[in-house]
Amino acid sequence: MSLIVQKFGGTSVADFERIRSVAKRVAKSFDQGNDVVVILSAMAGVTDSLLHMANQVAVSPDKRELDVLLATGEQTTAALLAMTLQSMSYPAKSILGYQAEIITNRNHGSARIVKIGANRIKELIKKRNIVVVAGFQGCDTEGNITTLGRGGSDTSAVAIAAAIKADTCEIFTDVDGIYTADPNICKKARKLSAISYDEMLEMSGLGAKVLQIRSVEFAKKYNVSVHVRSSFSEEEGTMVVNEDSNMESLVVSGITHNKDAARITLKKVPDQPGIAAKIFSPISNAKILVDMIIQNTRAGGLTDLTFTVSKNDFRKAMEIENRVAKEIGAEKVFGDENIAKVSVTGVGMRSHSGVASKMFTTLSNENINILMISTSEIRISCIIEEKYTELAVQVLHKAFGLDKD
Amino acid sequence: MSLIVQKFGGTSVADFERIRSVAKRVAKSFDQGNDVVVILSAMAGVTDSLLHMANQVAVSPDKRELDVLLATGEQTTAALLAMTLQSMSYPAKSILGYQAEIITNRNHGSARIVKIGANRIKELIKKRNIVVVAGFQGCDTEGNITTLGRGGSDTSAVAIAAAIKADTCEIFTDVDGIYTADPNICKKARKLSAISYDEMLEMSGLGAKVLQIRSVEFAKKYNVSVHVRSSFSEEEGTMVVNEDSNMESLVVSGITHNKDAARITLKKVPDQPGIAAKIFSPISNAKILVDMIIQNTRAGGLTDLTFTVSKNDFRKAMEIENRVAKEIGAEKVFGDENIAKVSVTGVGMRSHSGVASKMFTTLSNENINILMISTSEIRISCIIEEKYTELAVQVLHKAFGLDKD
Repeated sequence: MSLIVQKFGGTSVADFERIRSVAKRVAKSFDQGNDVVVILSAMAGVTDSLLHMANQVAVSPDKRELDVLLATGEQTTAALLAMTLQSMSYPAKSILGYQAEIITNRNHGSARIVKIGANRIKELIKKRNIVVVAGFQGCDTEGNITTLGRGGSDTSAVAIAAAIKADTCEIFTDVDGIYTADPNICKKARKLSAISYDEMLEMSGLGAKVLQIRSVEFAKKYNVSVHVRSSFSEEEGTMVVNEDSNMESLVVSGITHNKDAARITLKKVPDQPGIAAKIFSPISNAKILVDMIIQNTRAGGLTDLTFTVSKNDFRKAMEIENRVAKEIGAEKVFGDENIAKVSVTGVGMRSHSGVASKMFTTLSNENINILMISTSEIRISCIIEEKYTELAVQVLHKAFGLDKD
Repeated sequence: MSLIVQKFGGTSVADFERIRSVAKRVAKSFDQGNDVVVILSAMAGVTDSLLHMANQVAVSPDKRELDVLLATGEQTTAALLAMTLQSMSYPAKSILGYQAEIITNRNHGSARIVKIGANRIKELIKKRNIVVVAGFQGCDTEGNITTLGRGGSDTSAVAIAAAIKADTCEIFTDVDGIYTADPNICKKARKLSAISYDEMLEMSGLGAKVLQIRSVEFAKKYNVSVHVRSSFSEEEGTMVVNEDSNMESLVVSGITHNKDAARITLKKVPDQPGIAAKIFSPISNAKILVDMIIQNTRAGGLTDLTFTVSKNDFRKAMEIENRVAKEIGAEKVFGDENIAKVSVTGVGMRSHSGVASKMFTTLSNENINILMISTSEIRISCIIEEKYTELAVQVLHKAFGLDKD
């Protein structure tokens, strides 16, 4: 008999039939004697249509009010699932963000959880209720509704699991676990039975869009065992756990890629103090996120500066830098939208050398040019030409011994 | 400079364009220096589609959960209107039922307001905000969401007006006021500039579906001036006020009719103690509302008993009474769906005699047979054959001097 948190994403509750499937799944866990707390997202597409509604009445909708509007999405699914369970004679109660005392800061649209009271949830569990919590939402200390940003229900689930000391937090989604690479482009990719929080953090940030990155940070901080699994099958998925847990001892646990990258280079920038601020402040003011930055020193007090942004922001960033280049006296601005990022990730890198050189050699053997490189303690990323993405993932997958037998 | 509550119904916020019209109307009052609290219903049709959703997942949806679901309708319009006002540079804030501290009993689906804190609303007004309150909803003392039943936003508006001591409560709707009769069937009907709470109570209950009856009870109890007016024109509507206010001195202020009536007669019922309970308990257990009841004594310890129900409940009520008739030994059960109720209402009846006889004579002059009669202190209602409804309204309207000049 365990205390289990189960989170179902938007595709898992996309219609009434799927809501019934979720209810059956929840009921099964409950019937096995477990206490079950369910966290739900809005039905797939609903958050987008609510955003669309807001844009019909206001060009840039007030963020406080947008949160009030968006919160209806999860409120709807929570009520519907609780009703479904009740109609199956299970004692279910829906609970909204403020009722679950999910207290956040006031950063509407991407609020961070500060504290979870969870007394109400605990009381309801004690009375053997199935508690259905509306994900994605909380409230600030004054009771204003806040939302946690895209994928925020993952964070709701992990945070609640931490607050009520759940034995496990199951994240039901439309994939059946974390793979060594994207199975769509690497036929030999295989599902990992376990992955460490740190690897998952690197991989979430790199385009393996299975878990909201903040939920993994939360899981790591409070040591919550997260089980990523499919809502459409009974199969075990991937456990996201502490590094010292029983994990396969792989040097590299996955190859990830992200085609949403574009590169901008400022040529022959006068290398003076404060020049980086002049280049990047207007970018950050325009709320454009910069990923990688590389600076090459040239002769004569000049330098080349290259950075990457998401493809969506490319045009805007180019406009800004063309203006900046004139102001600071840089020679020229080059842009390139046809790039991608390929990364190898693994906690094994901490103790194994040679991962970087193996990556570079593998790519070079295929005549794939490496345009930029960045590294963390457990990850190496290379920017390459976009057209080589699939090839790069496949050869790296093989080179690091990840291909299925 | 006044403190004004403005309530807009579902048709007034049915789409984005109408929401913008509402915003302009609210802004205008605000610009005139008034403090404005807005109460909104859900967009027309939304409550019905939410009910339909609920029926997709459960045959008889849990009432607590249904309230959680239905409350999203008003949450949506409140957020959208606040956004719209913000985008027009007005300081607007949406407030949900629990945030407005609209405390109700636990009677989910038709909860009654017990108390309104309204501190939050008062604070926001003090800071010169336009406060947009989601109507129709409240919460019980444990914070569970409740709803006030069909038309509940009227009650929200009047109750909030009472709680914040508003100078007036404007109810914007799709009619432009209260008429002396339904203008669709009585060409000479005219708009009343004022009507008393008591008359409005009688008329709300009689099919003039302009205000939820409970909102009028509230208005009477707390002496709230209610102004019923059109959201589509600037014209003054009808004030619902205390009897002693400046009102036109009419004996009869309106002729109402209701075709939603059907009649059931049990013939030759043995007239024994407890017989009425045997006849009406099963009806009330089936949640069928009985309107009028008449009992005629016959010779030989027998009696005829006639009552009316709404047409929707007719078939069910007939089934029940056919069963009951056998049990209690009544001779026969007759049913008639082709009836209607016509009423004359006016506080003037309290001091003027002869209203009843004038009504009966007027109907009789047209050869309209009166099947049943019921009266209150300020109302007389007759059940007639349905086909005479329009004629009856027209001749009564003329007879009581209500025709336009």
